[in-house]
Order: sequence, then structure tokens, then C-alpha cells
Amino acid sequence: MKEIFDAITTADCRTYPGSKWQTHPESVLPLWVADMDFPIAREIQQAIQERAAGFVGYPQHGGDPQVLLALQERLKSRFDWDISARDVLTVPSLGRALHTCIAALSEPGEGVITQTPVYHRFLIGIRETGRVALESPMLFSPAGWELDFEQLESLVTPQTRVLMLCNPQNPTGRVFSRLELEKLAEFVLNHDLLVISDELHADVNYGHQHTVFASLSPELEQRTFTLYGPGKTFNLAGLGLGFVICKNPALLDKFKQVLLGTLPEPNVLSSAAALAAYTQAEVWEKEVLAYLQANRDHLAARLQKELPEVQFAPLEATYTQLLNFRNYSFAPEAQKVLLQGGLALNEGSSFGKDFWGYARINFATSRQILDQAIDRMVQIVQARQETVSS
Amino acid sequence: MKEIFDAITTADCRTYPGSKWQTHPESVLPLWVADMDFPIAREIQQAIQERAAGFVGYPQHGGDPQVLLALQERLKSRFDWDISARDVLTVPSLGRALHTCIAALSEPGEGVITQTPVYHRFLIGIRETGRVALESPMLFSPAGWELDFEQLESLVTPQTRVLMLCNPQNPTGRVFSRLELEKLAEFVLNHDLLVISDELHADVNYGHQHTVFASLSPELEQRTFTLYGPGKTFNLAGLGLGFVICKNPALLDKFKQVLLGTLPEPNVLSSAAALAAYTQAEVWEKEVLAYLQANRDHLAARLQKELPEVQFAPLEATYTQLLNFRNYSFAPEAQKVLLQGGLALNEGSSFGKDFWGYARINFATSRQILDQAIDRMVQIVQARQETVSS
Ligand SMILES: Cc1ncc(COP(=O)(O)O)c(C=O)c1O
Ligand SMILES: Cc1ncc(COP(=O)(O)O)c(C=O)c1O
Repeated sequence: MKEIFDAITTADCRTYPGSKWQTHPESVLPLWVADMDFPIAREIQQAIQERAAGFVGYPQHGGDPQVLLALQERLKSRFDWDISARDVLTVPSLGRALHTCIAALSEPGEGVITQTPVYHRFLIGIRETGRVALESPMLFSPAGWELDFEQLESLVTPQTRVLMLCNPQNPTGRVFSRLELEKLAEFVLNHDLLVISDELHADVNYGHQHTVFASLSPELEQRTFTLYGPGKTFNLAGLGLGFVICKNPALLDKFKQVLLGTLPEPNVLSSAAALAAYTQAEVWEKEVLAYLQANRDHLAARLQKELPEVQFAPLEATYTQLLNFRNYSFAPEAQKVLLQGGLALNEGSSFGKDFWGYARINFATSRQILDQAIDRMVQIVQARQETVSS
Repeated sequence: MKEIFDAITTADCRTYPGSKWQTHPESVLPLWVADMDFPIAREIQQAIQERAAGFVGYPQHGGDPQVLLALQERLKSRFDWDISARDVLTVPSLGRALHTCIAALSEPGEGVITQTPVYHRFLIGIRETGRVALESPMLFSPAGWELDFEQLESLVTPQTRVLMLCNPQNPTGRVFSRLELEKLAEFVLNHDLLVISDELHADVNYGHQHTVFASLSPELEQRTFTLYGPGKTFNLAGLGLGFVICKNPALLDKFKQVLLGTLPEPNVLSSAAALAAYTQAEVWEKEVLAYLQANRDHLAARLQKELPEVQFAPLEATYTQLLNFRNYSFAPEAQKVLLQGGLALNEGSSFGKDFWGYARINFATSRQILDQAIDRMVQIVQARQETVSS
């Protein structure tokens, strides 16, 4: 696999229509939106091809039982969490399902707490459903991002209904420890909150034990929507398939009601892909994780050496690294400066109001493209010279 | 193609997970839900395979421009209707999009007129969104189903906001003439109604000129959602891709608002399939239509000969034939009697409150399976003997 990944050029990436490589002009290296510049596992390609050669009529109501079984087995073996098929809704996008979860768990005007910086659709979902975002900024130091429990406590109002958790956290890359999650659980129960726990990145994890928030206790299971799926791990973003899991049937029903009967059955090719991902693509998964981990370390090493003023914390999961440019006087427009120089990263402020001066880089690409991007970043930043202290 | 279609057995159909063949026990022949027991065109299979071998990251925002262009060209060349890409939303299910259209065009408690018998999701959509179904039963005679304009006029109340049209009509198989549609348009404008025109079956048409309702006048274009897609024609139901077309940007925006930000971008494999369908699969399309037409005629001939008391009208489009069992005393439970005898058809009452005693048969299967189904129907009906007059 390494040879295949290594060989990928920008020309390869531009071959297929897609958001990442088609949004900017060709002069820009786009290391932004979170998908990988890698072909998917052969086993998954094969499964799609075989399914397309079969009959592709309407799928079974409620989703493919084989897929649900594979999901069930995976959650049990990896995270020791027991679910059954009836606890699961298969959705065409978890990013969009966030809206539905928020609407199912709260009323317009009510408060939704979330730790920032966070996947921008958390904030979009809260805003577009007319709820109030209560941002709890995490504390940054190069040693690691930390939850701020004190500030969290101060956010709660009588109108606060929901905690939206992202674990592993995009974009900080934190895998919250069981201890941290237990403390959060206490907070949740104390304030009688409902929880949306987005665990889509659980498997893109560099050796840290992932804990499913809902699995901490039956009480939490009854008040939590867990979001999970093969999209990130197996690079199936364009296939649109994820799982909304909830052991409280009344809450799942609420989710369906909010959707007003618009939730279709899963796409049969996506189901075939998900099944192959969970049952046949373990080797690919291991190899891609090794490649990503090496890229993570390579990026960190080059930045530390060539741009020591750019700060970042160790990344425990996900394949996007949040970079802190606040040591530079151009920090307030760091993302814009980089884009003008030909490097498209995600703007820090999209992850929370306190995160100007940050930008997120996606390193799920070939080493050669990553190196081109780092070269470019070094050039752009060095051309601006001035640090805050200078 | 004919040889391939002819060769298909019930065992082939049961190979792949799906709604049609997996809902009933193996003793039942399932000729109900509207997909075909045929593999999809080789060109489409190929396009899916090639797309899966490429990068399947997030698709471009708003849908694949190539697909939208192919749609545009098809609507122009087949129906002389001009649209542009910005008039189109790509959705994962037209059946489910009906809900959203209804909610976008009306308020709870308002009336929605529709001619029955009609695709059951029209009625489900009206009910689940809390609108009031105003059913206008079409008039049956073995010469053909006719719209009842007089009764239609009598249905209108001050709270009536929407007409839901199905053209070609599922399950009557009518392709409404330009004259009929012009008369309907007059009705719509007189009463200032908004229109949902489901034209998904426009291409499954046995030589009758299809007229796009919205294309009749710019005034109608401004008040009509047109639903269309490759799902029925190319047997892509399990891939979940259809188009909601509206030349009134405010109405399209309303559609998106109702969805509360939950509408995901189209699945990239489905987009590749749609593109291949509209640009490369014309031969398959012609051959499948010829096969369906022959099955339609074969079914009609056998029924006329062997079960002359079963009535039905000539079918101009679609691959499902509505059968009238009212000459038999078991008519009120015709669908149940057939199911008990091992033949699953759609219950007439699901298409409108006046259609007890009808059942819908899907003849998009191999001739051998169709013949088995007819044999079985003949047996079941003859075993019951008694007609209403006997
Ligand atoms: C935390 C998180 N949730 C959800 C999504 C989007 O999921 P989907 O592709 O199913 O919409 C992302 C994508 O980056 C993400 O990072
Ligand atoms: C008239 C009509 N509209 C819509 C649908 C469903 O479309 P989709 O498969 O896109 O949900 C059907 C399916 O039978 C239909 O007959």
C-alpha cells in the first residue's frame, strides 16, 4: 500500500470530480476538507463492483442486516459496547445528521454546549436550527489540548439542554481519556443534559484507547446519540453512509419525526462498501493508519525544525493537524495569507469564535504532496518574516 | 439483452439483499415494489466500477456539473424543456422528497389535491406532514382511466394550496395528453394552486408523447416542483438519486429550508451511474422498454384469455399494471387472497381510499417469472370461482 500512496501526484488527485481538488485553481495545493488522497481498499472496490453487477433495486427496510451485524460486532470487539440493530439508523451524512440530532433533543432558543475548536458543522447545525451555541474553548498548550471543566460549569443556564461532544476531537486530535469522559458524564447527569457524541474518527486513532461515551453507563446510553461510521477510516466520504446509534427508542423516533419522513434507505452500493470495510479491509486500515502516523510525525518534525514559531499539540487521532500561527503578526489572517501563497487550509475561526490565528492542515495525502505543502508553507511564512515579538 | 432478461430465475433474484425478494417467504412470488428484476446496463456497471477505482472523497457542492448538464440536455431533447443547473436539487429519494415538497408549498391543515389511484407515497406524504388529502378518483373503464374534472372542481376549498400530479401516472399507467394537462393547468391557475408534478416515469413510456407539466407555460414553471430521475428507467432504485427541479428560486430555497440543512450532496457512485445512464445506456434503455412492452402485452393477452373477469385499462407507461378484481366476490380482500396463494402484489387501497378490489402487478421481470405469476394468479382466482354475478 505504501508504494501506492507514495506515488500519488497532484495530477492523480485532480482526475476525479470532487470538492477538495476542484474548489480552488490549480495553482493551489488543497490540504483542507477531511478526506484522503488515496484510492479506497481493493476489497471495497471489489464489493462495490460485485454489488453493481447484481440487482440494485430497493434495499431492505431499515438497512442491510449484514451491515448492521458487522457494525454491532465491531463496536463490541473494539470498544466493548453492546448495541442491537434496532438501535441504529443509517444516514447518508453524519455532518447533516447533526442538525437532526440537535432538533430532536432541544427546542429553538435552547442552549447547546460544545467544546471548541470543533468540527464546523457542530456550530452550523446549532445556528441553522436556531439553538444557541455555548462554546467552551479548550485550553491550548504545546503539551496538549485540555478540556476546561471550570468554564464549562459556568456556561450552563436553565435553558441548556444538550452537550455536543466530538471524540476523538476534530480538529484538536484529542482522544479523551476514560477519566475525562467520566468527569464529563458527571457534568451531564448533574445538569440533566442530553448528549450528541460524534465518534466518527474513533478508528483513525494512533494507539490511544477510545471510549464510547454512551458505553460509560446505561443512564448515559438512554440520553445519548452516538455518531459513527466507516466514512473517515476507509475514505468513503463520497459514498455518504453513517450510523446514528441510540439505545433510547423514544429519542430515535424523535430523530425520525424531525426528518419528516424524508430519511431514505441506505444506498445499496454504500452498504456493500461499508460491509466490505468492516469485514475485509483490516489490512488496508492498518496500513493507511501507519502511513498517516508517519505523515503526522514527518509534518511535526519538519515544522519544529523549519517553522519553530508555529505551535501545535500532539495529535492522538484524526488526520488533520491544527496549527497555531499566533506567534506571527499575520496570525489574524493566517489562513488567507496561506491561501494567497497557494496553500488551502481550513480557517481556525470556522471551528469556534476564539480560534482566529489557527489553521487546519489535512495530511492524508502522499508524502510528496505533503512535502510540497510544507515547502510552500515555509516559504510563505518566511516571506512574511515578522513574528509578534520582532 | 433479451436473452439475459429471459434467463433470469427466481434464484437469481433472491441472490442479492433487497426489499422485493426478501420481504416475503420463498414460497411467494413477489411482483410488487417497483424495481426491475434485471441487472443494470453494462455501461453503468462500468462507470460505477471506474468511479470506485478513483478517489471517492466529498463531491462538489451542489452536485456533479456533468450530471446536471446531461439532465439538462435530456430534458431539452426529449421534452423540449429548458432548465439550468441552478434549478436542480439532487436528492437521495424522490419518494421521500415528496414530503419536503408538500411541506415547502403548504401549511399543516391545508388541502392537497391528488388524482387517485396514485403512488402511495403521495398519500403518506400528505398524511405525515399533517396536510389534508383531497382525493379525486379517476374514472375506470377497460377503455382507459380518465381524469374527473368535474369532481376535481368540487374538491377545492379556500384552504386548498397544492395539486400533486403523477404523470405518467402510477399506478394507472396513463400518460396525460397535452390537452388534459392544459385543462389541469387552467384549473391550477384559476385556483392559484402550487404544483408537485412527479414525472419519474416519463421515460418508461410505450410510445406516447410525454409533456412536462411545468413546460406548458412560464407561469406554471414558477409554481411547480418537477420530480424526475434515472431511478425507474435504468433500474437504479437502490442507488437513491433523483432530481427536484424548480425554476422559482424562492420555492427551491423553501425546499432546502424545510430540510433544515440535512440534504447531503449526492453519492458519487450514484452520480457516476446517472451520468452513464443519461449518456451511454440508450441501447439498454431501448431494449428494456421493448422487453417491458412485450411483457405488458403478454400479461394482457393471457389475462384476457384466462381470466376475462379481471379488468384493466391499456397501459401507456410504467411497468406496473393495476388489475380490477371487482367482478369477484373476494374483491375486498383480493390482494390478501393472492398473497395467501403465493403471489405478492400491491394492495389497491394503498393508492387511494376508493381502490379496494384492485391490485397492482409489476411485470418488470423475466418472461418465465411473469408466466409463473400469471399461472399462479389463474389458479388462485379459479379456486375461488365465484364471481359477483354467480
Ligand atoms: C466529527 C465529524 N463528524 C462528521 C463529519 C462528516 O460526516 P459525513 O461525511 O458522514 O457527513 C466529519 C467530517 O469531517 C467530522 O469530522
Ligand atoms: C411516481 C413515483 N415517484 C417516486 C417514486 C420513488 O422514487 P425514489 O426511488 O427516488 O424514492 C416512485 C417509486 O415507485 C414512483 O412511482
